[in-house]
Amino acid sequence: MATDRTATPAEKFAYFDERTSAAIVNARMGAGIDPRLRQVISVIVKHLHAAAREIEPTPEEWLAAINFLTEVGHTCTDWRQEFILLSDVLGVSMLVDALNHHRPPGATENTVLGPFYLPQAPHYPNGANICLDGKGEPMVVRGRVLDAAGNPVAGATLDIWQTNDDGFYDVQQKGVQPEWNLRGVFTSAADGSYWFRSVKPRYYPIPDDGPVGVLLRALGRTPNRAAHCHFIVTAPGFERVVTHIFTPDCPYLHEDAVFGVKESLVANFVRVTDAAQAASLGVAAPFWSVNWDFTLVAAMSSG
Amino acid sequence: MATDRTATPAEKFAYFDERTSAAIVNARMGAGIDPRLRQVISVIVKHLHAAAREIEPTPEEWLAAINFLTEVGHTCTDWRQEFILLSDVLGVSMLVDALNHHRPPGATENTVLGPFYLPQAPHYPNGANICLDGKGEPMVVRGRVLDAAGNPVAGATLDIWQTNDDGFYDVQQKGVQPEWNLRGVFTSAADGSYWFRSVKPRYYPIPDDGPVGVLLRALGRTPNRAAHCHFIVTAPGFERVVTHIFTPDCPYLHEDAVFGVKESLVANFVRVTDAAQAASLGVAAPFWSVNWDFTLVAAMSSG
Repeated sequence: MATDRTATPAEKFAYFDERTSAAIVNARMGAGIDPRLRQVISVIVKHLHAAAREIEPTPEEWLAAINFLTEVGHTCTDWRQEFILLSDVLGVSMLVDALNHHRPPGATENTVLGPFYLPQAPHYPNGANICLDGKGEPMVVRGRVLDAAGNPVAGATLDIWQTNDDGFYDVQQKGVQPEWNLRGVFTSAADGSYWFRSVKPRYYPIPDDGPVGVLLRALGRTPNRAAHCHFIVTAPGFERVVTHIFTPDCPYLHEDAVFGVKESLVANFVRVTDAAQAASLGVAAPFWSVNWDFTLVAAMSSG
Repeated sequence: MATDRTATPAEKFAYFDERTSAAIVNARMGAGIDPRLRQVISVIVKHLHAAAREIEPTPEEWLAAINFLTEVGHTCTDWRQEFILLSDVLGVSMLVDALNHHRPPGATENTVLGPFYLPQAPHYPNGANICLDGKGEPMVVRGRVLDAAGNPVAGATLDIWQTNDDGFYDVQQKGVQPEWNLRGVFTSAADGSYWFRSVKPRYYPIPDDGPVGVLLRALGRTPNRAAHCHFIVTAPGFERVVTHIFTPDCPYLHEDAVFGVKESLVANFVRVTDAAQAASLGVAAPFWSVNWDFTLVAAMSSG
């Protein structure tokens, strides 16, 4: 049955039939319902039934699936979203993000927002150091915000957050890390340039003490996210970019638990030992030097 | 990627790609994991990603789905299983039951067990009345338990339960209905025959005060189950049958909320007004007379 029309009475009132079960379930929907809901449920029912037919779960396996989903639900609290984690580790979050952000070649790609973003981080002038406790290997990130034609975008906002050298965000270590450690908002200059000082981020595990962690272990997968800095880059007239830059030497670069890595987002981290250069940038040698440009697309060209 | 082999290193360590996202997620599974889990997750990921591609959810719709599943999980308690309800109303429970119980033509078909079965109901001699409070329209059910060749099956156990005339099971009305009201276990005689007295069952809603009820209303569907009696029929050497018989005049026969109705399970309910016949059966006239045979298949012939 097509998903875009109401069922005939014969379809709507059909008894269960294993061969046409999804169509029978979908035909039961009423005439006056929201058309988008009709479409969404039709697709979900179709794929649920197709999956059941392929898997042929025993009654015990079906019950195990029910119990797993129940445990995922029971793990969700105001501060822990296990269903988002499940969506993340099954690659669904990245797919939904990709489907919503088709961009032309050369434009900076999106990746997942993640659960550790905080609005209202401190605003800093370019060159400021967002590492407030001095721990970790110094890093200097320099680059420009550009439009699709390569022209500078002045006044763009770069909202930045990352883990410390131990793999924790400030909010995970309240009382240990200073408040707003490794978070800051910067603004691109007239030539589109920005720069900031920080420390090299480290990989870290997603929360794996719940049913999603059990699943990852059963699947032989790591819970670790590849080391990265988060960015949200916005500018009037341009599409918002939610993205990361990844360190190329992270041992989990190719096994990111949430599939957040895209080849275009892996930066070049250059280890600089020159003390004079370090001193001129206000960091100690050796430090990591990263050059990174963001290319924005006009807001209307969003896919 | 095939689901029955371990990924190559190139597959296992691939970055996210929207076009091949499901294969990339599945290739990430480790080498030594349970093969059945590998197969199940491969199918689930394939259909999840295909559904997302067809639906193209906005970020807001994706979050609404996350929140719906979370609410379903939060509604689950020791005595309420909202994920089973969700499986039921989407036809998945019936499909899984059907996939596990392929039987030759003429054999009594399965349907869902439902949440109201209690083991250890009272054993009664044939002819006993399981209606302990005398409420409702009298019903007499008579029939035989047979094998596939039509030979009687003696000593078969028939475990029977149903709602009262108000559409409630005893466990839903503790203190209102007598304990074990409308439940009983009977045994077929040497000629395979059984019979019992009861009252005509009534349709009733599945619990619809949770998110599944919200979904049913949004889909323009009734929460009602078509009126039925439950049976579990067992006999040594035969496959267990979990089934219902449905009343043919129920207004929800063609809209059963969990798709439990199969054409072969709709009985003929004959209204008998003859007082002498009623008296001979120990019921008041008028009463409902139902003839119903169960045909079992040998345990090894199970599909």
